[in-house]
Amino acid sequence: MRKITLQDVAEAAGVSVATASWSINDNEKHRIPANTRNRVRKIAESLGYQPNALGKGLVQGTSDLIGFVTDDVATMPFAGQIIKGAQDEAWRSGKLLLIIDTGGKESVENKALTMMAEQQVQGIIYSTWYHRPVESLKLQSERPAVLVNCFDMHDLYPAIVPDEVQGGRTATELLVKAGHRRIAFVNTTSPSPARTGRLEGYKQVLEEAGISRDSSLIMYAKPDQEGGFNVTESLVESGATAVFCHNDRVAMGIYDGLKQKGLSIPDDISVVGFDDQSVISAHLHPALTTVGLPHYDLGVLGIRKLLKICNDKSDEQKVGTTRVKCPPVIRDSIKRLQF
Amino acid sequence: MRKITLQDVAEAAGVSVATASWSINDNEKHRIPANTRNRVRKIAESLGYQPNALGKGLVQGTSDLIGFVTDDVATMPFAGQIIKGAQDEAWRSGKLLLIIDTGGKESVENKALTMMAEQQVQGIIYSTWYHRPVESLKLQSERPAVLVNCFDMHDLYPAIVPDEVQGGRTATELLVKAGHRRIAFVNTTSPSPARTGRLEGYKQVLEEAGISRDSSLIMYAKPDQEGGFNVTESLVESGATAVFCHNDRVAMGIYDGLKQKGLSIPDDISVVGFDDQSVISAHLHPALTTVGLPHYDLGVLGIRKLLKICNDKSDEQKVGTTRVKCPPVIRDSIKRLQF
Repeated sequence: MRKITLQDVAEAAGVSVATASWSINDNEKHRIPANTRNRVRKIAESLGYQPNALGKGLVQGTSDLIGFVTDDVATMPFAGQIIKGAQDEAWRSGKLLLIIDTGGKESVENKALTMMAEQQVQGIIYSTWYHRPVESLKLQSERPAVLVNCFDMHDLYPAIVPDEVQGGRTATELLVKAGHRRIAFVNTTSPSPARTGRLEGYKQVLEEAGISRDSSLIMYAKPDQEGGFNVTESLVESGATAVFCHNDRVAMGIYDGLKQKGLSIPDDISVVGFDDQSVISAHLHPALTTVGLPHYDLGVLGIRKLLKICNDKSDEQKVGTTRVKCPPVIRDSIKRLQF
Repeated sequence: MRKITLQDVAEAAGVSVATASWSINDNEKHRIPANTRNRVRKIAESLGYQPNALGKGLVQGTSDLIGFVTDDVATMPFAGQIIKGAQDEAWRSGKLLLIIDTGGKESVENKALTMMAEQQVQGIIYSTWYHRPVESLKLQSERPAVLVNCFDMHDLYPAIVPDEVQGGRTATELLVKAGHRRIAFVNTTSPSPARTGRLEGYKQVLEEAGISRDSSLIMYAKPDQEGGFNVTESLVESGATAVFCHNDRVAMGIYDGLKQKGLSIPDDISVVGFDDQSVISAHLHPALTTVGLPHYDLGVLGIRKLLKICNDKSDEQKVGTTRVKCPPVIRDSIKRLQF
């Protein structure tokens, strides 16, 4: 069985191939009279003609594709839920995500952006696996773009990012509300919005609770298990009854360090993590109370913002930062102190 | 500045739009004389004409896209390296991966496959986040397809999968070579090629080493940390000096269970994992010796196979299963026994 082409439809309808194409694929520049359009469409249907998405894209100047360019989200075991959220939301609008993971290589990224322009994507989501500033000048093109889990220093594009200050507040509040007053914070040695924001949130909550500042309670560690393990000594010496860890990996290292010293969680010390990297946090002994990153929501909101810009050509949508709430995830690593 | 169109190029060159298109986009059916083709291309370049990938796809009947359809590889924190390998290999051939993660929903999958056909993908990689059989009848189309990390019961498409039997052999050999003879195997309760294959490998190696079979050493656990934790009692009672765990998560649970009993790894019991889920395995105390899943290689080999089928229209490439080696990853959780 031969495939039905646009030419077959045109011949059967007695019109030119161009008229057949413009009848089947809506086109703003070439309006075809309604009766011709309907006749061509009926003939196309009766012949079993399958419209070709490439042809439709050519005529309309865009495709049903949204480009999703990322450094490592698709391949790193961390922020995949950003893609999940973006994909679910794109599907709801009948759009397809064209995902390209560049491994952070600039040459690959440039080629990816060129290819996406060639594929006539409606717009671009640019996303990173951890929250950080990016140089987004390179995105400059006719198509709209939204940054997800990252932001541009010069506010060139709208950005959807986690609310790190609120996240730091939430983690600290969990401990203050359980009656702790000597609360350590193991922050990361790597400069990042997470480092600055979570520290700010921690300080705000302690101040609001009338707990005087003690800089010996703020420690720095490499943001992984070894970092947490190595900071355990200082943590124990500080006399803290609770610790807020920069992330779940640090908390996992602190668990190992404390257990090796014969200390028990949460009886001897309460622990709160960050990230809700659940392959770790849900399965520690005891299960780790932590603060989640809103990866899924970041993806959903990124697509919503992008489609809003596509539909509303005014400029007001095209800048600004949306901060998304980091939710508490309550498990078993906080002890409630008696008053 | 107005965008240069194909029509502008055609007018400047004094040829029809069709001739301009066929000159710029190679087309087997419509051969344009070399001197015309070169002249049109030079004019296009001097005008700054940007070829449109959709147009190219329409003329050639395919695009530079390869469809990558998966249940959850892009969004689950486990097998993302399959995408990494596939993407790296696709890039090397100038191809772009159109990745769609369906969350395992059949309706989404059907729509994804339809949209990919509309986008004129050259072929399809169908991949799953863990090694399992799939119903691949639905893939049936004119385009070639390769299954990665999964296989069809009826061998409808070529499949690239991990070699589970060899992986089970490798894990067991690590322990036998370190002098262990009483080796437990904590297998998963979930039926899968991994369960069957790794058990087969374990049995083969024990038999070859002349170690008599003891069924009390084969245990079953849910394939996560809780499963491992809960099986620790039976493991200790079995008198094993070493244990091969179905995966790293089970090993992590056994670590917690053994430590809680005051036992030490590897001095009291040696542990080998599987998967090399490195956020866990590299960071346990002691770091876990394990067997890796060849996710990156599965992705690379999947694309190679697919492109081979695209280029070589004979049927011989179109079936068969390729089993890829699972490599040992040596860390610190095996004790060498004295003879």
